[in-house]
Amino acid sequence: MKVVFAPDSYKGSLSSIQVAEVMRKAFHSVNPNIETIMKPMADGGEGTLEVFSTSVSHEKIHLSCKGPLGENHESWYVKLDDQRAVIEGAVIAGLPLVPTEKRNPDHTTSYGIGQAITHALDEGCTNLIVAIGGSSTNDGGLGMLQALGMKTYDENNQETGMYGKDLHAVKEVVFSELDPRLKDVTIRVASDVDNPLTGPRGASHIYGPQKGATEQQVNAYDHALDHYGKLIEKVFDKNIMNTPGAGAAGGLGFAFLTIGAQLESGAKLVGEAIQLQDAIRDADYVITGEGQSDEQTLYGKAPGYVAELAKENHTPVLLISGSLGSDYGALNKIFTSCFSIIPGPSSLEDCLQNAEEYLFETTRQVARLITKQ
Amino acid sequence: MKVVFAPDSYKGSLSSIQVAEVMRKAFHSVNPNIETIMKPMADGGEGTLEVFSTSVSHEKIHLSCKGPLGENHESWYVKLDDQRAVIEGAVIAGLPLVPTEKRNPDHTTSYGIGQAITHALDEGCTNLIVAIGGSSTNDGGLGMLQALGMKTYDENNQETGMYGKDLHAVKEVVFSELDPRLKDVTIRVASDVDNPLTGPRGASHIYGPQKGATEQQVNAYDHALDHYGKLIEKVFDKNIMNTPGAGAAGGLGFAFLTIGAQLESGAKLVGEAIQLQDAIRDADYVITGEGQSDEQTLYGKAPGYVAELAKENHTPVLLISGSLGSDYGALNKIFTSCFSIIPGPSSLEDCLQNAEEYLFETTRQVARLITKQ
Repeated sequence: MKVVFAPDSYKGSLSSIQVAEVMRKAFHSVNPNIETIMKPMADGGEGTLEVFSTSVSHEKIHLSCKGPLGENHESWYVKLDDQRAVIEGAVIAGLPLVPTEKRNPDHTTSYGIGQAITHALDEGCTNLIVAIGGSSTNDGGLGMLQALGMKTYDENNQETGMYGKDLHAVKEVVFSELDPRLKDVTIRVASDVDNPLTGPRGASHIYGPQKGATEQQVNAYDHALDHYGKLIEKVFDKNIMNTPGAGAAGGLGFAFLTIGAQLESGAKLVGEAIQLQDAIRDADYVITGEGQSDEQTLYGKAPGYVAELAKENHTPVLLISGSLGSDYGALNKIFTSCFSIIPGPSSLEDCLQNAEEYLFETTRQVARLITKQ
Repeated sequence: MKVVFAPDSYKGSLSSIQVAEVMRKAFHSVNPNIETIMKPMADGGEGTLEVFSTSVSHEKIHLSCKGPLGENHESWYVKLDDQRAVIEGAVIAGLPLVPTEKRNPDHTTSYGIGQAITHALDEGCTNLIVAIGGSSTNDGGLGMLQALGMKTYDENNQETGMYGKDLHAVKEVVFSELDPRLKDVTIRVASDVDNPLTGPRGASHIYGPQKGATEQQVNAYDHALDHYGKLIEKVFDKNIMNTPGAGAAGGLGFAFLTIGAQLESGAKLVGEAIQLQDAIRDADYVITGEGQSDEQTLYGKAPGYVAELAKENHTPVLLISGSLGSDYGALNKIFTSCFSIIPGPSSLEDCLQNAEEYLFETTRQVARLITKQ
């Protein structure tokens, strides 16, 4: 029997690599001869780089850049070969890097992500994958574009700063000094949301609050991004503010569209890069999972993507998640069976704390059923 | 495919018959051609009679007797044929029949159970099964034995009453007027506990509090049952106070031993009576479950008994329960796989309220996995 483990992370408790390891351990506790293939997944958010660096051969590149608060920050990205690099925004300007009490989009910047791109270009890379989920910023990519050479000016013709708060002052954008190498580079951006830059479904309204924005800030940012977006659209003479994903990562999606990048489903991009489809081809079962599954799981989330691949291949695919929303019917459209790891009435805190044990035991029960021990 | 459903009840939410129905519905929602056999179980407590009356042909016998508080009470038992009757103590003197604020072993009596036995004898029955779990009494079977002809006297040679409180006054027991027909009757008592009549593991200490006994009452009853038990042992010249199960149902187990009854595992007795073993013989899967499973499930509980039968027959047996204790390792000694129906972090109240939906969905996922939809 051959089983592929392709879970996403259990947010708040286990990385996707840890989840896959626990699942494998559970299957092997039932029968050590089961052939297992580890394909932990990611969707473009936190943990994407870790997935690449366990699944494919790579070189880890160390990088000194600005962190989310503009501080000096030691970060990293990976080179897959001479041409290809993978950059993760979350390890440069991610929300977990900002202490809870300091979370405020006024004081965060995506500048370091631009520095990482420059670094990769300096290394000779012409093919970049950038995972942008999990950001702490709502700066519309202002910092990143500045790091790549964009100049921004306020009403007094003074150059503006690189933080979210500076976005409100921008009255002019100049791209003449943009790094010319970007023209010859392919950038694929991994994201898992399809929000536009502004409006009620835009970056500020949907994701601002979780980054520390007050209601007042949300409205001010929505307004500022609208102004900033229109300035940039005018320069390039293209409509990209409403492109699905422009509102990803506090408008970083929009900034990437500006420089000609492609926005893609993070799960699909990761799945292709780690050659998941090949792994599934002659598998008997595919096991995936995530912290919380519901109807959203069907749309662009890693387990949904894994299930679609498995379904195309007529391979049974099981979802083992921290918790399951009420709509099993929707999940069963693509998953053979869905199980929660929760053994009984319990608090969220208890579940997060005991996720590893609960996951192991539930996976073990599934393995026993499959193999009829 | 042939599947046997033999669950116990989900205490506090679903009867074993309801659980089996929901499980069947879930399997049939996946494939209506799956052959299903309904064998809802019981362990000698509340619901035992209901299980008999759905599983085997029977005649329902109506009975006017005393209820747990000595009130007039309309109850019932069943006759399986001319000789065999099944009596359930819980529908005569059960705890659910006593309003919470009136729960106090001083004022409850097992008298009605003795009346039911007399009624069955009058009907010509010579083979009785009596399920004694779920009682409201701690009277050592005083009431039941009085209904069958035992006389009890206090220190002034006055006959005592039939309630728990009267137990403290008993100084003499006389069995000369005991119903002589009992000698020629086989009584099998279904119980799921093995406690002795008295002591730290006795009826009063272990089960008194849930029947409303205060700490002071617990001690007084333990003392009274000790005195009463010794009086009776002396009459019959046999040691039965420490027989496993003597402490069942507030000492009703002891009273039954007095009149020559056999105490048996309720689950085994029920399983044999509903011919569970035959049903399992050519089944592909056996599904059982209960409200809360833990290591205790292995010892005399209905799902444990079901699993042992299935195991002897080399049939995979699955446990689908409201919640699972931490020791999966112990459960997996007899169960192929164990699943909780809980879909995520939730309160006990939520789980009880939504038990039917949660059970349906979880069973459905298992059915899909088994049949690889």
